[in-house]
Amino acid sequence: MASSAGPEIERLIALLAKLPGLGPRSARRATLTLLKRRDQLLQPLSEALAEAAARVRTCTVCGALDTTDPCAICADRTRDPTLLCVVEEVGALWAMERAGAFRGRYHVLGGLLSALDGVGPESLRIGPLVSRAGSEAIVEVVLALPATVDGQTTAHYLADRLAGAGVRVTSLARGVPVGGELDWLDDGTIAQAMRARRPA
Amino acid sequence: MASSAGPEIERLIALLAKLPGLGPRSARRATLTLLKRRDQLLQPLSEALAEAAARVRTCTVCGALDTTDPCAICADRTRDPTLLCVVEEVGALWAMERAGAFRGRYHVLGGLLSALDGVGPESLRIGPLVSRAGSEAIVEVVLALPATVDGQTTAHYLADRLAGAGVRVTSLARGVPVGGELDWLDDGTIAQAMRARRPA
Repeated sequence: MASSAGPEIERLIALLAKLPGLGPRSARRATLTLLKRRDQLLQPLSEALAEAAARVRTCTVCGALDTTDPCAICADRTRDPTLLCVVEEVGALWAMERAGAFRGRYHVLGGLLSALDGVGPESLRIGPLVSRAGSEAIVEVVLALPATVDGQTTAHYLADRLAGAGVRVTSLARGVPVGGELDWLDDGTIAQAMRARRPA
Repeated sequence: MASSAGPEIERLIALLAKLPGLGPRSARRATLTLLKRRDQLLQPLSEALAEAAARVRTCTVCGALDTTDPCAICADRTRDPTLLCVVEEVGALWAMERAGAFRGRYHVLGGLLSALDGVGPESLRIGPLVSRAGSEAIVEVVLALPATVDGQTTAHYLADRLAGAGVRVTSLARGVPVGGELDWLDDGTIAQAMRARRPA
């Protein structure tokens, strides 16, 4: 689908269309916005991408993304060294940090075990997790994995692997989400919230 | 909303969130995708943006975007010099070119007249349009403007302004779109299609 605007613009559209949330049509619209707002958007975005490409790296301790290694969270001495939170991906780490409910450190698995997708334990950062749990001052490992089949399979596997490390292994609570109307919740969530009910 | 990933990543998220079609949440997802696919996506996109910022300019004849001025369409001698198609924005020009149904040249207005938004004739490229219609070999000006109140107001105004230029002024036909089920079309479209009916 040519846009009759030269190969440079076509290339920009094709690359933007690869981003999640953008298709060919919205990538064209985004490209037009970029070209119209050259100084406020196109130039700064170009520079921000170049800087990210040059400077952002993966933390060798926890697997998070940052411009320093170890990352700011691993290097932060005010965080609780006895708590370790296991997440699937960096996006989940960011979500936990936005929630502001956890003051320990993280371990990014890099995915979930999945028989269907052929992801076995050796594809994930499980070995480093077990050795961190054994060697650092960690007392509790919180498994903050998604409430999906793969997430729960992975959580069970990790609980087994961590059994000998002398740490307490916990999981995020299940229940009714904030703002959750019972009418709109799925049966599984309601059943879990009922089983895990607590004094009001 | 911090993502605890350093100011470089935050800045990238904030800039991507300004693109149409992306919000703060999808911009974060896009940023993660970019950082994960560094060589295939982040680096090429950074370069494509830098190249677009450096090389793409607005054609001084028609208002389109290209790396040359006049643009490839204005410079293309195989295109019909007697036909001029007036569009609101470059996006509409690209859509016309994709449709492949027009082989003349274009004139990009840069917007539509709008009393509500305070856009008067002097804000649009109407003067250059009238002088092009008077001086070039143009025989017919096709108004390819949106079927909205502002689009039609602008079309009427342009028809008036072009009345003395000795050119035929036409508009895109109105009717049932391809694949249009009568059940799902609005009444206005059906009424226009009925008024403009033709021999089968």
